[in-house]
Amino acid sequence: MSATWSDWLAGQAAAREAAGLVRTLRPRASDDGLVDLAGNDYLGLARDPAVVEAAGAAARRWGAGAGASRLVTGSLELHADLERELAAYVGQPAGLVLSTGYHANLAIVAALGGPDVLVVSDAHIHASLVDAVRLSRSTLTVVPHSDVAAVRTALEAADGRRVLVLAESVYSVLGDEAPLVELAALCEEHGALLVVDEAHGLGVHGPGLVRERGLAGLPHVVVTVTLSKALGSQGGAVLGPQPLLDHLVNRARPLIFDTGLAPAAAGAALEALRQLRARPELTDLVTRRRHDLAATLGVEPTAGAVLSVPMPSPQVAVAAQAAARDQGVAVGCFRPPSVPDGVSRLRVTVSAGVPQADWDRAVEVLLAVVKEHR
Amino acid sequence: MSATWSDWLAGQAAAREAAGLVRTLRPRASDDGLVDLAGNDYLGLARDPAVVEAAGAAARRWGAGAGASRLVTGSLELHADLERELAAYVGQPAGLVLSTGYHANLAIVAALGGPDVLVVSDAHIHASLVDAVRLSRSTLTVVPHSDVAAVRTALEAADGRRVLVLAESVYSVLGDEAPLVELAALCEEHGALLVVDEAHGLGVHGPGLVRERGLAGLPHVVVTVTLSKALGSQGGAVLGPQPLLDHLVNRARPLIFDTGLAPAAAGAALEALRQLRARPELTDLVTRRRHDLAATLGVEPTAGAVLSVPMPSPQVAVAAQAAARDQGVAVGCFRPPSVPDGVSRLRVTVSAGVPQADWDRAVEVLLAVVKEHR
Ligand SMILES: Cc1ncc(COP(=O)(O)O)c(C=O)c1O
Ligand SMILES: Cc1ncc(COP(=O)(O)O)c(C=O)c1O
Repeated sequence: MSATWSDWLAGQAAAREAAGLVRTLRPRASDDGLVDLAGNDYLGLARDPAVVEAAGAAARRWGAGAGASRLVTGSLELHADLERELAAYVGQPAGLVLSTGYHANLAIVAALGGPDVLVVSDAHIHASLVDAVRLSRSTLTVVPHSDVAAVRTALEAADGRRVLVLAESVYSVLGDEAPLVELAALCEEHGALLVVDEAHGLGVHGPGLVRERGLAGLPHVVVTVTLSKALGSQGGAVLGPQPLLDHLVNRARPLIFDTGLAPAAAGAALEALRQLRARPELTDLVTRRRHDLAATLGVEPTAGAVLSVPMPSPQVAVAAQAAARDQGVAVGCFRPPSVPDGVSRLRVTVSAGVPQADWDRAVEVLLAVVKEHR
Repeated sequence: MSATWSDWLAGQAAAREAAGLVRTLRPRASDDGLVDLAGNDYLGLARDPAVVEAAGAAARRWGAGAGASRLVTGSLELHADLERELAAYVGQPAGLVLSTGYHANLAIVAALGGPDVLVVSDAHIHASLVDAVRLSRSTLTVVPHSDVAAVRTALEAADGRRVLVLAESVYSVLGDEAPLVELAALCEEHGALLVVDEAHGLGVHGPGLVRERGLAGLPHVVVTVTLSKALGSQGGAVLGPQPLLDHLVNRARPLIFDTGLAPAAAGAALEALRQLRARPELTDLVTRRRHDLAATLGVEPTAGAVLSVPMPSPQVAVAAQAAARDQGVAVGCFRPPSVPDGVSRLRVTVSAGVPQADWDRAVEVLLAVVKEHR
């Protein structure tokens, strides 16, 4: 590499080091013995035997990959089945499956946005939606987190433009719920389209908060989901009216120029969805555990399955994470630049997939670690 | 939906209709009986029994999904194995696996680019790289297709900035080979970094054209690949020097804020890679078939497994595609806006996975269809 590039990379590495913000991958073994309170497999469906078996069965029937873009020969009846069942469950007219949740967000915003479109985005919105807005070249107004009045002001300034309002039903970092009812009403009033990312709402709230709050099927509310969290697989989907999805099929580059979702991932997600529908006790267990754990740790209960424990500094957060890990419990750690407000946090995921005895032990470990480091 | 949005969608749909450019998804059955000369499963590995079995085995061992971002608990030893073997095969020091090839391209350009970076991009570059440049906010100079002199001129104007030069080893639409040796020499001379997308080179040219042309391991040449074409699975990877990958781990949003590649996809890709190494006859068969078919159809042989047959109009291209399909052969059809030069084409994929008898019949069908429509 030229000195220009290698010096720059070395400088970037030194700056991370100095700031205590070095991230490294730590590949795990399949039998590492850790209780996983760090991931997003909220219902434990990634390891559900029926879901795992469905992944293998789909690969046997359809092959290991979709083989082509969905616009060519990469659309499978399996994708169509998943789209139909997902849409029905979430309460939307139709669905379009993409290869990641990230792609789903890129696709909808990049295909609907444009220089003549105003995007009103919550300050805590996920990186995939931020990137999506940038790709779309839309005009962007970022409003303070969950500030409905600020959204109103932005909509009043829209001046006849088409407007997209972006929110997450449950925000990924703080785990709080968006004011969906108010946002939907404002969007209706102003002719805007509300895009709700249910990445952390689906499963944890059954069919998601859009449906729970009575907003499912409103023509001005569309939903994106990921198949990689509560559904334990990989992939994403846009759920909404057919004409909108038809537009995506024709215009969304992250769909058109990408290989279709792998059959194993689609098959697993479909089986996970069926499990989720058939076993509401999974959702109930997550709800109970997140309330109990929040009370135990003395933090605010969240709307999502992820509890957030503020830490005094990135370094202390890393130390607390390591201490938990030494006692067999994996938790996450959020540090700048992945946090919207600069506050480092332990990120503790509640999952219905953790057996009760492991759960009880993990709660004890966490309580001790948090006491020591906060 | 508000009138603003629904009128706009309807207008867009009408414009597509009027231009003869409506795209629809056509989900296929697993047993549709068509000979697939449309996809990108160049070596037939998506349906290879060992590859399919590896997908199921990985799901059983690791679960249906990775469960989290690779920065949290979503990095598996399986990913690390795949990275090591891919890098060794392609001749690069190290690898980083992402959940699609699209993500791999977004990741490297978005993490290395920036307002102070000049990107010199070939005019035929894939949509994922175009999007990547936009995300990175780099200054962009688009040079005419495979015009080495134009790249030189652009590099001479770089004026001390860091520079990325983007190319595909085999371009996706026309199937022609990039002047890699010349580009690499220019990049070395000017301190630029050459990013080569081997999406259509890997497998079809064994370890890819970067290695075949003697450029593997040069510090100023890095490679991206997809796992979804010749490897028959899903996913992508960036292959290059470790300090560069470390930078991606710390900065590439499409890695950091995305769930890790599903175990089934990673396991299948790893087995496909082993098959590819063990069975060079697969690559040989693709080479033979693409030369034979090009001669039969009277088109230029390409560097890739996809032959491109120009058609007089989008409508005729669609009609020819339908005629082939009626006779049991699926071929692709490229129309604006997916073609860099506005010329509609039949897109015929040569795959080692098609049994000889099916192949012979398909060639006859194509010859008749092309004669009738050209
Ligand atoms: C809110 C939100 N949206 C989208 C995504 C992306 O989903 P995926 O991992 O399926 O790409 C994530 C996390 O990964 C997320 O937290
Ligand atoms: C040149 C090129 N790069 C990247 C990609 C994206 O790869 P993936 O389908 O794995 O996202 C494609 C096609 O899909 C391609 O043709």
